[in-house]
Amino acid sequence: MQKETARLIELDREHTLMSHISAVLGWDQETYMPSKAIQERASQLALFEGLAHQKAVNPEIGELLATLEAKHDLSPDEKAYIRKVRRDYDIETKLPEAFVTEYARSTSIAQVKWAEAKKDNDFKAFESHLEKIVGLSRELAGYLNPNARPYDVLLDLYEPGSSQESITAVFSTMKAYLVDILDKIRAKPQIEDKCLGRYVSSETQEQISLYFMKVLHFEMDRGRLDVSAHPFTTSLGADDIRITTRYVEDYFPSSLFSTIHESGHALYDMGIDPNPEFRGTKLAEAVSMAVHESQSRLWENIVGRSRAFWERNFLALSALLGEAGRDLDFESFIESVNRVSPSLIRTEADEVTYGLHIIARFELESALLDGNLRVADMPGAWGEKYKKLLGLEVPNDRVGCLQDVHWSIGYFGYFPSYALGNLYAAQFWAKLKEEVPDIEARIASGDTLSVLTWLRANVHCHGSRYMPGELVEKATGSALDPVWFEKYLREKYSSIYGF
Amino acid sequence: MQKETARLIELDREHTLMSHISAVLGWDQETYMPSKAIQERASQLALFEGLAHQKAVNPEIGELLATLEAKHDLSPDEKAYIRKVRRDYDIETKLPEAFVTEYARSTSIAQVKWAEAKKDNDFKAFESHLEKIVGLSRELAGYLNPNARPYDVLLDLYEPGSSQESITAVFSTMKAYLVDILDKIRAKPQIEDKCLGRYVSSETQEQISLYFMKVLHFEMDRGRLDVSAHPFTTSLGADDIRITTRYVEDYFPSSLFSTIHESGHALYDMGIDPNPEFRGTKLAEAVSMAVHESQSRLWENIVGRSRAFWERNFLALSALLGEAGRDLDFESFIESVNRVSPSLIRTEADEVTYGLHIIARFELESALLDGNLRVADMPGAWGEKYKKLLGLEVPNDRVGCLQDVHWSIGYFGYFPSYALGNLYAAQFWAKLKEEVPDIEARIASGDTLSVLTWLRANVHCHGSRYMPGELVEKATGSALDPVWFEKYLREKYSSIYGF
Repeated sequence: MQKETARLIELDREHTLMSHISAVLGWDQETYMPSKAIQERASQLALFEGLAHQKAVNPEIGELLATLEAKHDLSPDEKAYIRKVRRDYDIETKLPEAFVTEYARSTSIAQVKWAEAKKDNDFKAFESHLEKIVGLSRELAGYLNPNARPYDVLLDLYEPGSSQESITAVFSTMKAYLVDILDKIRAKPQIEDKCLGRYVSSETQEQISLYFMKVLHFEMDRGRLDVSAHPFTTSLGADDIRITTRYVEDYFPSSLFSTIHESGHALYDMGIDPNPEFRGTKLAEAVSMAVHESQSRLWENIVGRSRAFWERNFLALSALLGEAGRDLDFESFIESVNRVSPSLIRTEADEVTYGLHIIARFELESALLDGNLRVADMPGAWGEKYKKLLGLEVPNDRVGCLQDVHWSIGYFGYFPSYALGNLYAAQFWAKLKEEVPDIEARIASGDTLSVLTWLRANVHCHGSRYMPGELVEKATGSALDPVWFEKYLREKYSSIYGF
Repeated sequence: MQKETARLIELDREHTLMSHISAVLGWDQETYMPSKAIQERASQLALFEGLAHQKAVNPEIGELLATLEAKHDLSPDEKAYIRKVRRDYDIETKLPEAFVTEYARSTSIAQVKWAEAKKDNDFKAFESHLEKIVGLSRELAGYLNPNARPYDVLLDLYEPGSSQESITAVFSTMKAYLVDILDKIRAKPQIEDKCLGRYVSSETQEQISLYFMKVLHFEMDRGRLDVSAHPFTTSLGADDIRITTRYVEDYFPSSLFSTIHESGHALYDMGIDPNPEFRGTKLAEAVSMAVHESQSRLWENIVGRSRAFWERNFLALSALLGEAGRDLDFESFIESVNRVSPSLIRTEADEVTYGLHIIARFELESALLDGNLRVADMPGAWGEKYKKLLGLEVPNDRVGCLQDVHWSIGYFGYFPSYALGNLYAAQFWAKLKEEVPDIEARIASGDTLSVLTWLRANVHCHGSRYMPGELVEKATGSALDPVWFEKYLREKYSSIYGF
């Protein structure tokens, strides 16, 4: 290893420690922090982001990068590492420190205001905060690339190489088959959701969540489960990966599948290990939000809602449910958790309509960032979009445009990752089945480790060694293709709904 | 206000934010952090202490202090504030940054090793870590004052103005009357502890703790209760004061009184408000560890174990205990929680023998710091001390020298504060009774707010405005005098034991 690389790693590790400290503050804010502490926490985060930013823009990094980029005897991992550091350094150095501080403070406050506004179903109380965040997001895009459309700049932050145009292309293919499959399902008799209305206490649901985290090989000494308004996964360290869930006491599948989803994220983070020399550096970070999401959705939907998985695990679930699960049979459970029905809440949506929720957000945030939609008009625009895409009336903002935390924390451009994640997941799964042909039989016998092992070897272990496009090619032999998701959906749902 | 004072406050507030961020990391480590995260957390804390130290030793502070100290037109609060900043600045500037970093890392690791060693009753596993911390503590004292005895320097950190000599003087008076009262009690029939052996689940004990926090006016939107190996109180912000407890399922008074104790600490921190202009500065810090401890012990013992307090609250406790409290009557409860009996565990000790636990630690840590006791010999020395002072055999280190967290985190010189706290508490209480003669009747009618109001006005609100000696004089009209604690104990225990 070059001595400049070693020095770069040293500086980078300090920055990673800072990010993890910031994650501790964020995690605490979402889980346990007393309500009146919010202003001080915002000040703490603002101060801290400023300090982290100072470390990230250290000119020594720029000098080391320039020296290393001129060399011709770098190892492949050094090359990959330098590419990643360069990308992040360019992003950081373009942002003024005062902006970074202001951004951290404003998103911290807006997130709390969002939670209150959602609780009170009061969009007006959130409006000025959202306006502030939209303005800051546009400002951020302007710093990074003043010549590009702001939304394109933000999309590229989460999925390197993507743009509104490239995503529109993929989404229009996906939209066509989602609508077709949905039409076929609608022509068949609807499944009754037999999980609905069974009272299961938060305590019992917590036990269920913890049980399935263990089944999926979540390492409990490297992470934990807590409760927050919106489930999330966060890294407070390479050995400290925490997930959260929320308990809906008359619908236990909500926490069950959100826990499996977040566990999928956590398993990715727990499995990143590109090269011991690069531990605690940017090479040991996830490659993109969409690949991250492919992991959560593969575990939640492709494995977690499969017949094979429940063949082995349904008895344990029944036992944990106790009286509430007494008259819930295996077939009804499988059907219920794979029921397809247009609904208002993205996080509760089925696999078929989920993509339509994302398309709605993609189009709305694009309009917001382009200045074609005023923040004040969001509730109305949201209603129209849901009417058009999902055929639903939106009765209030709590189940409408206030349902997601993302915009309050400035995550414009993040939503498309969820749908891209489904596409990646289906493509990984198709390759895994090709290489491990008896994978479903293995899962049915209780072995989910075979799935994890394949993902560790082909996705997790690489960290940021490849660009997302390179990774999917390396892992599956071809570029991202929405056809795999279509195949997966048609096969599964033609069987469930009998079309 | 002088413009230099305003600038000093600005710098100071950043330092306070840093301390609070560090408190978040510490709180999380003790409550929820997964076990394998410890090494990274130690690195996070070490890096962070370094950053906080950089802020604390900013030469601009020294320049501002020099300018302000030469002025003659400062307000009393400015004067008090500058005195406090000067004291802390001198301490910080004498410590090299590398030392501060190493100290933070080592204590973080030692604390975890202590917890493991205590669990496994394995002093050998902790020995090298304790040696390391003793060495670092001696080094720390050397940086602060190379000409003084290390232990004197450390004592002065917690109780400004104190020394081994001054504390020995107070403790020998106290020891004499404690032994006399204990002898009188031993001559009487022993009380049976009727709380012992009643199974009360952790969940129920948590409900009891939360109930009494509310009774004592703990502001739940500015704090919270969690579980840790050793109960503590910590400020993550002026509006974020958190306490912890631990649940012993066959002895509910353990968590009940530890919660009241920590609530006493928290009420002090929640009530500090010397002057709005100085919010978030060093003037809004507690005056000393001993005064802090006076608050916890006043609430725990003088109020919390009083007949008057339970006259109003016993019915609620009975209801919360349910079946476990069915045959526990008022008189037995009062007697049980005021039972005096020499025991091995400091935190479970009664008011009379408690001071003897402190004297043991005071003498042992003094010998350790002076180099008159080797770390390897601590278990034996501990056994001898307990034999001599309390007449007890120490069967193992878990209930011996491994029982307290303090030494693992470098708190040498802290223990005397606990006993000084009892003395301050009794003196405050005597004054409060003089000024509010019907205070016991008020407490018996459910009014603990009168106690809190007096403490807020005479102790809490001042923050660090006065030195500890000045504060006690201002609040009570005379210097600290151990006679008030003696009077309190003789009056209370002659009634309970009938001597």
